[in-house]
Amino acid sequence: MLDALFRPRSVAVIGASNKKLSIGYRILHNLIDFEFKGPLYPVHPKEEYILDLPAYQSVKDIPGAVDLAHIVVRNTLVPQMMLECAEKGVKVVIINSAGFKEIGPEGKALEDEVVRIAKENNIRVFGPNCQGIMNTDPKVSVYANFTFTKIQPGNVSILAQSGGIGEVVNNRFSELGIKIRMYASNGNACDVSIPEILEYWGQDEETKVIVLHIESLDNPAEFIEVTKKITPTKPILAMKTGRTEEGARAITSHTGAMIEKDTTTDIIFEKCGIVGFKNTDELCRAAIAFSEQPASEGNGVGIITNTGGPAIVAADECVETGLELPELSEKTKRSLKESQFAVASINNPVDILATAGPNEYEAAINALLEDERIDVVLVNFITPFFVDCEEVARRMTEIAKTAEKPIIAVIMTNKSQWKNTLEIVRDAGIPVYSFPEDAAKVIGKMAEYGKYKKRIEDQIIDFVIDDGKIEQILRNAQKAKVDFLPQKDVFSILNACGFSLAPYLSSQDLQEILNFASEVGYPIVLKIDREDIVHKSDAGGVTLGIEDSDELKKVYQQYQGSFGKQANIIVQKEVSGGVEMIVGATYQAKLGHLVMVGLGGIYTEVLKDVSFGLAAIGHNKAGEMVERTKAYKILDSVRGEKKKDIEALISIVKRVSHLVGRFPEIRELDLNPVMVLDESKGAVIVDARIRIQE
Amino acid sequence: MLDALFRPRSVAVIGASNKKLSIGYRILHNLIDFEFKGPLYPVHPKEEYILDLPAYQSVKDIPGAVDLAHIVVRNTLVPQMMLECAEKGVKVVIINSAGFKEIGPEGKALEDEVVRIAKENNIRVFGPNCQGIMNTDPKVSVYANFTFTKIQPGNVSILAQSGGIGEVVNNRFSELGIKIRMYASNGNACDVSIPEILEYWGQDEETKVIVLHIESLDNPAEFIEVTKKITPTKPILAMKTGRTEEGARAITSHTGAMIEKDTTTDIIFEKCGIVGFKNTDELCRAAIAFSEQPASEGNGVGIITNTGGPAIVAADECVETGLELPELSEKTKRSLKESQFAVASINNPVDILATAGPNEYEAAINALLEDERIDVVLVNFITPFFVDCEEVARRMTEIAKTAEKPIIAVIMTNKSQWKNTLEIVRDAGIPVYSFPEDAAKVIGKMAEYGKYKKRIEDQIIDFVIDDGKIEQILRNAQKAKVDFLPQKDVFSILNACGFSLAPYLSSQDLQEILNFASEVGYPIVLKIDREDIVHKSDAGGVTLGIEDSDELKKVYQQYQGSFGKQANIIVQKEVSGGVEMIVGATYQAKLGHLVMVGLGGIYTEVLKDVSFGLAAIGHNKAGEMVERTKAYKILDSVRGEKKKDIEALISIVKRVSHLVGRFPEIRELDLNPVMVLDESKGAVIVDARIRIQE
Repeated sequence: MLDALFRPRSVAVIGASNKKLSIGYRILHNLIDFEFKGPLYPVHPKEEYILDLPAYQSVKDIPGAVDLAHIVVRNTLVPQMMLECAEKGVKVVIINSAGFKEIGPEGKALEDEVVRIAKENNIRVFGPNCQGIMNTDPKVSVYANFTFTKIQPGNVSILAQSGGIGEVVNNRFSELGIKIRMYASNGNACDVSIPEILEYWGQDEETKVIVLHIESLDNPAEFIEVTKKITPTKPILAMKTGRTEEGARAITSHTGAMIEKDTTTDIIFEKCGIVGFKNTDELCRAAIAFSEQPASEGNGVGIITNTGGPAIVAADECVETGLELPELSEKTKRSLKESQFAVASINNPVDILATAGPNEYEAAINALLEDERIDVVLVNFITPFFVDCEEVARRMTEIAKTAEKPIIAVIMTNKSQWKNTLEIVRDAGIPVYSFPEDAAKVIGKMAEYGKYKKRIEDQIIDFVIDDGKIEQILRNAQKAKVDFLPQKDVFSILNACGFSLAPYLSSQDLQEILNFASEVGYPIVLKIDREDIVHKSDAGGVTLGIEDSDELKKVYQQYQGSFGKQANIIVQKEVSGGVEMIVGATYQAKLGHLVMVGLGGIYTEVLKDVSFGLAAIGHNKAGEMVERTKAYKILDSVRGEKKKDIEALISIVKRVSHLVGRFPEIRELDLNPVMVLDESKGAVIVDARIRIQE
Repeated sequence: MLDALFRPRSVAVIGASNKKLSIGYRILHNLIDFEFKGPLYPVHPKEEYILDLPAYQSVKDIPGAVDLAHIVVRNTLVPQMMLECAEKGVKVVIINSAGFKEIGPEGKALEDEVVRIAKENNIRVFGPNCQGIMNTDPKVSVYANFTFTKIQPGNVSILAQSGGIGEVVNNRFSELGIKIRMYASNGNACDVSIPEILEYWGQDEETKVIVLHIESLDNPAEFIEVTKKITPTKPILAMKTGRTEEGARAITSHTGAMIEKDTTTDIIFEKCGIVGFKNTDELCRAAIAFSEQPASEGNGVGIITNTGGPAIVAADECVETGLELPELSEKTKRSLKESQFAVASINNPVDILATAGPNEYEAAINALLEDERIDVVLVNFITPFFVDCEEVARRMTEIAKTAEKPIIAVIMTNKSQWKNTLEIVRDAGIPVYSFPEDAAKVIGKMAEYGKYKKRIEDQIIDFVIDDGKIEQILRNAQKAKVDFLPQKDVFSILNACGFSLAPYLSSQDLQEILNFASEVGYPIVLKIDREDIVHKSDAGGVTLGIEDSDELKKVYQQYQGSFGKQANIIVQKEVSGGVEMIVGATYQAKLGHLVMVGLGGIYTEVLKDVSFGLAAIGHNKAGEMVERTKAYKILDSVRGEKKKDIEALISIVKRVSHLVGRFPEIRELDLNPVMVLDESKGAVIVDARIRIQE
């Protein structure tokens, strides 16, 4: 448990200083200023007093017990301080000092030594190269950090891998009036980890919303396990930076962690029910709504406005964000007709006109809240000088007290002239935005979280596959030290899994091949099957559309010339008339298998119409993945063509997930193309490759 | 010219009032408060004085000349007031009153009457149902508007179709410290139009940037003509709302204009060199940079930072916005190594560390400005308490005085504690943002405008086509009152244009068809060609892959059964081995032809991989259109396949543009599929349809 970190009974600052511009001064000053509830012990080799508190030459000289010690000394002195902390029985240290992993091999060695000392002495380490923590719980009131943003007790907790981002978020929260529960930025994170802090906050009753910034996930599996338990009751709003190659390179150069371009975070977030953001300010603005409003039950937004233009902006943004503007029920329309001006527009958006006053606003909001099709009410209010705006605000706050659906306000005004109006609404816990787009985006995120909360646990089905057969092929391949399996082994594995394959034969013998071809019928396909040729097409080892035996013979002889007489040749019936799809799986270290489905053939790489899921994948998830591709519309019949066998494709996705779950040594699997035939005709795998761990 | 509107020598307010909450009071009050330089004349039937100014019973009683009159009376009284204005010789009226086109047919009739009176009496009308105008030129100082936002003289002019949006923008400008040149929101716009105002501002030397909001373009051709002349020297930053169906419906219900879902605005903006926005706040933030910084010459961004996290955010957003982070030149790296701390990161982003002070910032900015690969410098600055931040700010402003490349700052700070720092930077004309994402987005827009400015006038080539032949076919079709042309006519037109068609024959005779087939070789395609069957596939009137004469006979007989013995049948050589593309054109009222190119076949509708251009289309534009499709990568060779004949496709796009330009009665033309063959083998049109104006 992290109580000694977030609820310390006493804090020492090793490297405290009287120099105002030093970090050692700033930390002690912040602790005093924030009125920490326990004793504070500055440690300094020479000074007698620091900030009027008696100082100690060593942490060992402190009379009372020390739960938490800041270490702010030069990097090379840190191990010695750690040893002294060990002697003293300090439970946890925050190492603010920089000069560790982030500066290269030398720093990395120093960091390793710190970790070793910590482990041997049962000390937990937060950092190094980090800011620190805060906890506004009035029983603790600890501001163990050198930043400058004042905070007030609230229910949002901030966890930021980058101190810079943490500070930007915290500062923006302060501007927006969002109040904080706890804060942590753990820099190099050599010991206390992000999942550990998340778990701790998951159990902290006063934390209602967690805001998270990450640059890299050291242990994605652990992250998933922890966050999946938190999100059903507590939203996590998260932003991953270093999404692009350039961003990833920048992380590498500032943290020393080897980061690659990010491709998995969105999939992980989705799996865990984490609401993801790509924009810091958007995340900050969303935090208000998540912390103050009830959860959204669906996608339906009702917009009320007193001016046309901003309602159109709201409507555009809602729709572009994936929300809906349902038609109002007849009951709602009747009720609005009674309560609003004659020329008001009784649609969605409801335009109650610039002359709308408190009564009109009150009636309109109530009417929309009662409409079953409406899940969230967005109230646009541009403050006219001839309307009693404060009274409009008061009516809104009265309604919000008992409303069971979220109410989000957009107040477009001069912030100093209409200060009271703004404050009345804000104090009632209604989030207020300056632009309709901001409100719409936040509502989109609330609906996303609402959907996560409603998600039913997916059923993972175990398929019957010929485990023994597959095991044997894989073992032999490992013995032979191949990475890509020979084509015939790939097909054998797929057969053992119960997949439908286009009829094929693997042989070196022309007569056998000719017999097979006449049996299954032309056109047929020939492919070379030699272990060392991975990209068969590029090597001229794939020939499509062979129409008769003469052509077949010619190609056979060509292959013998190019690839040698001992090379296996695969002869296969050419499948036509389906939609070419791809199903694949790739292993990601510490994460497991990413399963993929999308449009196949030459379009895969170019159009990138693929969707991903993290194994294990059940029926619902597999169906969702297929539906998310644009190609779904082709499968679901386009321009009067026959509907394709979507169920067969879904089943392949599930089976692939099962196969790689059972045999994780499969590092890469591609079924491409999978020909999805007409409904109830199945889906046939034409080509495939498998790479295994050597 | 609109001088009487924007530079009136005198203003009357018809409907001025002493009631503080009335619009008549507010307008007069604003005019007085903003210190209008000419005489003001309140008009009121009874009052002697309004706001201490002598009032007149009628505009006719005013002693001096009246350039501009506000009309703020009830809608039904407006025509009478117009007649009095006519008698007085008023040059232009602003009709603030609502109750016109936007309320339905009755209001529309009233508006028509107003327009009639205006035309007969040579009065220009601004509005009705509008806010008004402002001009901060100290020689005029006119605030003829009832809103509440104070403005200061500057160089950005705001034109907003929606008064609500105009006010939101104006208010945000005031918060951001952006200063205004002129402002106009013309509501129903029955006379003075948006293009007219744009043209006027285009000629106003003090307007450096135009910010534009539109809901609908009544006359897109005029809009294009006017704006194309402005944008080469003066940026127009524009936002179109009502982009979605729901948004468009909302416009219809609040303005009475019949608006459909927007599909053309982006294309129009691109054609005119207008920088388009989809977010109000983003537009406002961009205006600062456009008004204060030099134009950007390219896509290369150099990032300087004193903390890692926010630089990663900036890098991600830059790349996702389409910008580049070039590697720094060796010279720049050397210079940085000399000027920065030893552990600073000399890449792009350049991380000069939290301890970086004025010298480090100054040297880093100068080094990046001198690097030829860098077009814009983004300076991240999180204000550490141990750094002389004001001096950092002063150094930045010194550099900005002579810099020829844009410098954009992101200052992450507590806005009250570091107020001076912020002000020093802002006062020097360096745009300051709170979030790296905001800065990156703005830089993206600057680069977009930079690209527009560099664009070379495209050469439109006239093709030699058989005009007479096409003319004749179209006339006959119009006489026969068909809308979709028969297939054989379509093919004849395409032949007359010099397009390559898959060899075909139109006939009713089996023997003729058989002869043709054996001549061109199997496989062939049969298609029914009956004017009343537009969707031939759906009707079972297209048969692909006919392999021999027996199959041909069978299909022929089937067609005779289904479609009658008199029906024409098209027999065509089946083309294979190319990439299926589509080229098309659609006529848009008042705009002209939209030409389209994209991925063809069943993928067109589903994947929507298409790009558009507005005719006439020259070589560069056609090339750009093809390159913008994702399919371009397929054409340009994917996975070792042969490169396709991209030039042939480009030529088809140009020819289509030429054809519809010459014969605008072609309302819809689809060449689908166009088989683009291997390089230098051309592109062959397989199927096509043409719809003409009846």
